[in-house]
Amino acid sequence: MLSRTQQKALKRIVGEGRFLTDEAARSVYAFDASGLSGTALAVCFPKTTEEISKLLAFCHNDGIPVYPRGAGSGRTGGAVPTVPGIVVSLERMNRVIEVSQKDMLTVVEPGVITGDLQGLVMRHGLFYPPDPASLSFCTIGGNVATCAGGPKAVKYGVTRDYLLGLEAVRADGSVLTLGGRTVKASSGYSLKDLMCGSEGTLSIFSRITLRLIPRPVAEGVMFACFSSPEGAAHAALEIFSMGLVPRTCEFMDRTCSRLVTREGGFPVDQETLGAMLILESDGSPGSVADELDAMKVACQKAGSFYSKVAESCEESNTIWSLRRTLSQRVRQLGYPNKVSEDIVVPRGRLPEIVGRLEAIERHFGIKIVSFGHLGDGNLHVNVLYHGDRENELIDEVIDSIFRETLKLSGRVSGEHGIGLTKRKYLTWELDVVTLGTMRGIKDLFDPKAILNPGKVF
Amino acid sequence: MLSRTQQKALKRIVGEGRFLTDEAARSVYAFDASGLSGTALAVCFPKTTEEISKLLAFCHNDGIPVYPRGAGSGRTGGAVPTVPGIVVSLERMNRVIEVSQKDMLTVVEPGVITGDLQGLVMRHGLFYPPDPASLSFCTIGGNVATCAGGPKAVKYGVTRDYLLGLEAVRADGSVLTLGGRTVKASSGYSLKDLMCGSEGTLSIFSRITLRLIPRPVAEGVMFACFSSPEGAAHAALEIFSMGLVPRTCEFMDRTCSRLVTREGGFPVDQETLGAMLILESDGSPGSVADELDAMKVACQKAGSFYSKVAESCEESNTIWSLRRTLSQRVRQLGYPNKVSEDIVVPRGRLPEIVGRLEAIERHFGIKIVSFGHLGDGNLHVNVLYHGDRENELIDEVIDSIFRETLKLSGRVSGEHGIGLTKRKYLTWELDVVTLGTMRGIKDLFDPKAILNPGKVF
Repeated sequence: MLSRTQQKALKRIVGEGRFLTDEAARSVYAFDASGLSGTALAVCFPKTTEEISKLLAFCHNDGIPVYPRGAGSGRTGGAVPTVPGIVVSLERMNRVIEVSQKDMLTVVEPGVITGDLQGLVMRHGLFYPPDPASLSFCTIGGNVATCAGGPKAVKYGVTRDYLLGLEAVRADGSVLTLGGRTVKASSGYSLKDLMCGSEGTLSIFSRITLRLIPRPVAEGVMFACFSSPEGAAHAALEIFSMGLVPRTCEFMDRTCSRLVTREGGFPVDQETLGAMLILESDGSPGSVADELDAMKVACQKAGSFYSKVAESCEESNTIWSLRRTLSQRVRQLGYPNKVSEDIVVPRGRLPEIVGRLEAIERHFGIKIVSFGHLGDGNLHVNVLYHGDRENELIDEVIDSIFRETLKLSGRVSGEHGIGLTKRKYLTWELDVVTLGTMRGIKDLFDPKAILNPGKVF
Repeated sequence: MLSRTQQKALKRIVGEGRFLTDEAARSVYAFDASGLSGTALAVCFPKTTEEISKLLAFCHNDGIPVYPRGAGSGRTGGAVPTVPGIVVSLERMNRVIEVSQKDMLTVVEPGVITGDLQGLVMRHGLFYPPDPASLSFCTIGGNVATCAGGPKAVKYGVTRDYLLGLEAVRADGSVLTLGGRTVKASSGYSLKDLMCGSEGTLSIFSRITLRLIPRPVAEGVMFACFSSPEGAAHAALEIFSMGLVPRTCEFMDRTCSRLVTREGGFPVDQETLGAMLILESDGSPGSVADELDAMKVACQKAGSFYSKVAESCEESNTIWSLRRTLSQRVRQLGYPNKVSEDIVVPRGRLPEIVGRLEAIERHFGIKIVSFGHLGDGNLHVNVLYHGDRENELIDEVIDSIFRETLKLSGRVSGEHGIGLTKRKYLTWELDVVTLGTMRGIKDLFDPKAILNPGKVF
């Protein structure tokens, strides 16, 4: 509980209307998209770096836990107030301060919605590629905190690759000015890269400078069907070995591909269908056409039994709608419960991992559907089930998924972060020295452990 | 001085032949390419992670300074043993452990020569883009330590963008295993990114995993002449604003462009010539031709009075030789002394920075030649002079260059690191909180300050 004096002091920092302690606000901000929840003693909505700084200095002094929060769209519980504390929502810091065509960058506050920013810079002829699935409501601040990716990461990289500069407030309220406006630099330790992916445990971001690139003039899409997931994985490898880098290389496993093509109007034999790839290309109009043709050949070489390059805008939309409707169709399978995991393996291990996921499904007799960014080796694996979430079998299934991932030199998080739900698996991935060093960094930045306590470690 | 017991212990760790204390070895390894020197008490050549670990544990215990060293090709004194200590040369750890076509990566020891690695992976149909000017003798370990770039960074990014995994030995001898073999991950703090650019002050790298990309099938080159440096800078901006990303965008100022074209056989009017751009494109054969044509148009639009796209392999070589012979021709100007600096500004400030460099040259009546990676905003600025290096005027000139750079939101090092020579300027760039935080990181990793003491800070 916050004392009356504490409440008064905090209210003074952000102003009456931006410090909420009512039941409704506290419930809403106690949850995030992981479905987990904690206890929010209050919710603050700072509007300036100075307010964040004062908030943190106060909480640091009084030892009050602070939970920075973007849109709460994270899948691993990163924004959940585990130990009772104050949720600091950055959603009111949502100004785009600058879009510079000459410097090819944008300066934003952390609460800017990723999709909004993409649309805005597009109108300036520029392109911000990172595109997490939640882009219509997630925030840039949250993207930096988890080093978010998305389908286009296979060609364009993840959030880190666009992070030029960062203003970040330390636990004690002091303000770091990291990086800047240049596309390269070798001036001291790259603390902005340390902050990227630190999941709100080292600082609160107050201002973010992002690199932009020229907007590609043309784009095109195709899809290819395979009789097995391994076939699709081999096709992805074949594409890379031909020197092609698709803009997206999205995979759907047996269940997913059958679900989305059932009514899609494409003459795909459902019985034969074992996996699907959706492939995009962008660049100049000529190179897009050439690249799609070459990717089609690669798919055929890897055993694709049906493939289709979109020849009109309408066909492109139809193909992308296969991917877009996926979540909805998975829901229609009628499983009340779902655990979504995010794994990543080296590219060459793709055929193995998709095979092993099928083996786990068979072994446990449980429904697993996987889809995602195959070109990166990054898959979203969903375990679907009836009954209790805490079911021991589910834990065993998830354990098996991570065990197999690590056996293939994979990592326990591709783009979702560790948060709460993957802490156990992080200890599987990292050795004691490395994990201990990360803890040392945490202690250095946040000696009183007030920043997003209980996360990552 | 090392005691006899210490010498014996160190000799036992690396073996007799790889622990040198003779005069010749100690002199050679006291220098680096900055021209500065210090005092090497001994030179060690470890061959395994275990040897590095034991060396560091011993030196940590005895408080002996340790200077990790690649090829000594750094320009800022990063490898110089400022306080007497042991130079740990990684040059015998030069095995390429793996080139994986499927995973599109290579695993190397730190002493592998960058150019050798590029050639090797090329023969596997793969491409490692970072290409510092010293690539024929610099090492991958040194490249990671300074986050090296090169001409191709404008399209392909710097060393950091290719660093997937890193084995690094901490000052106390404990071994960190950072990153891995996947192209993305969000598993805890990105310590590999903290190590990249840390200039040997936080750890010694013992094994490095680098991402590779498909080798582009075609490439082409052109050059364009302008009446002023500002014209060339505007052309670079015009190129980006047309949505083009050249593979290289190399600039030469008035002096440089006149020097190299004097005998090049191109009909360029020396009197009019004020700057030159060399532009490359790579990709598919069709896109290369299109891109070069479009870049030529952009240059003409920005006022280029002569431009030439290479139409044969021979012509390409002739154009590139303009750039390659530059250093030699600058030497022929007959100035015995030179200070080379490496600055970077936001892209949009390019016309201003090249203008201000000319203004500094005029103001001080001193010869300044600048060339480099204009597309990145990264210029190498060389102050040429007769007489004493310690000359006060030279210090003033250098100060002015960095002052103007910072005024334009630039940074004091683009790709050379801070080392010894830029420590003063780093304090100009960074505020007290940020610099203090970096020092905190240094203390955390190296509490006894034995790793490359006196560098960066």
